[in-house]
Amino acid sequence: MKFCPDCGSAVVRKTPAGDNRERDCCDACGAIHYRNPNMVLGTVPVLGGRVLLCRRAIEPRYGYWTLPAGFMENGETAAEGALRETHEEAGIEVALGALFSLISVPHVDQVHAFYLADMISDRIEPGEETLEARLFDESEIPWEQIAFRTVETTLRWYFEDRARGRFDMHTGDIHFNRPRPKPST
Amino acid sequence: MKFCPDCGSAVVRKTPAGDNRERDCCDACGAIHYRNPNMVLGTVPVLGGRVLLCRRAIEPRYGYWTLPAGFMENGETAAEGALRETHEEAGIEVALGALFSLISVPHVDQVHAFYLADMISDRIEPGEETLEARLFDESEIPWEQIAFRTVETTLRWYFEDRARGRFDMHTGDIHFNRPRPKPST
Repeated sequence: MKFCPDCGSAVVRKTPAGDNRERDCCDACGAIHYRNPNMVLGTVPVLGGRVLLCRRAIEPRYGYWTLPAGFMENGETAAEGALRETHEEAGIEVALGALFSLISVPHVDQVHAFYLADMISDRIEPGEETLEARLFDESEIPWEQIAFRTVETTLRWYFEDRARGRFDMHTGDIHFNRPRPKPST
Repeated sequence: MKFCPDCGSAVVRKTPAGDNRERDCCDACGAIHYRNPNMVLGTVPVLGGRVLLCRRAIEPRYGYWTLPAGFMENGETAAEGALRETHEEAGIEVALGALFSLISVPHVDQVHAFYLADMISDRIEPGEETLEARLFDESEIPWEQIAFRTVETTLRWYFEDRARGRFDMHTGDIHFNRPRPKPST
C-alpha cells in the first residue's frame, strides 16, 4: 500500500500509538489501514465413495488438481462460501456436512477450511476456472499433481478417517513451500 | 475505498471481467482491490474448572466481559494468533487445546474461532485493552454482560459439553444484532 484509500495521500509504515506492530498509516487523515489473513473455503465432495477434484484453469497451479475452494467473500458465512465455491468451480450440487479441516498457511496469510459434502446428483458442470472435474477412487488420486498442500493434507486426512470409520475435525499449519513436479498435460 | 492504494487514483466500484460481484477497481493502473472477511481468534482459558473472562477497556462493548480474542495478524497461524491475543489481553500463560468453535458473523464480515486452553499458572496480568480479568465459576458467568454473541455462544457450548463429559468442535452463524442490556459499572 502506497496511498491512503480514504484520502489519496501517501501512507507511511509505522507502529501506531497503543499498537505493537507496523501498519500503513496516513498522517494526512489519521487512518490506519490493517491487513489481515484471508480465509479460503472449500469442500470434499463425495459421491459413491469417490471424491470430486477439479483441474485448475487459472494460475497459480494451472493444470493441477484441487478440491473446489476459493476466497470467502464479505457478507457470507463460511458454510455459504464453501457451497458457493463448490457450485462455481465444479458445477455440482452438494449437501454440506461438518467442518472437516482448518489449516493455517502463514507465509501467504491464509487459512484454508474444508467441509465434508455429499453430492446429491451426478451432474458435473465445471465453471470457467476449471479445465475438467471428475470423481476419483482413492487409488486414482493424482497425488503428484495436487495443486496445494492444504488440499493434499485434507485429502489424506479424509482417507485416513474413512479407513478408521470416523470423521473428526482436523487442524494444522503449513509453513513452507516445497518443490513440486510438473503436472501432466 | 475512494483511492487506489497502489497509484492514488480514484477507484470505481464495478464488476471486473470474469468476476460476478462489484470490486474497487482502478482504471488508471488496472488494480482490483478485494475486501474479505477477517478472522477473530481467541481461547476459553480454564483453571480449576473456572473460566477466565476479560472486562473490555476499549470500544466496542467497553465494560462488557469477553473471552480473550482479537484479529488474526498476517504471518501467524490461527493457533499462534489465539495464543498471542490471550497473552496480550489477559496476561496469562495457557496450553492450547483443540479448536472448539468457529462462528461466522456475516453482517460484520468476520469469522470468530475459539480454542480450548488450560491455564498453566494462576498469574493474571491484564493488558491495556482489559479493565480486569478474573476466573468465573459457571454459576457466576455474567450472561447479561457478555460483550459479543460469539463469546456467549462459545461459553454456552463449553458448559454444555462439559456437562455431558465430551468436548466437540462446534460451528455456527450469527446473523443479526439484538438489543443488549447495559453493563453494570
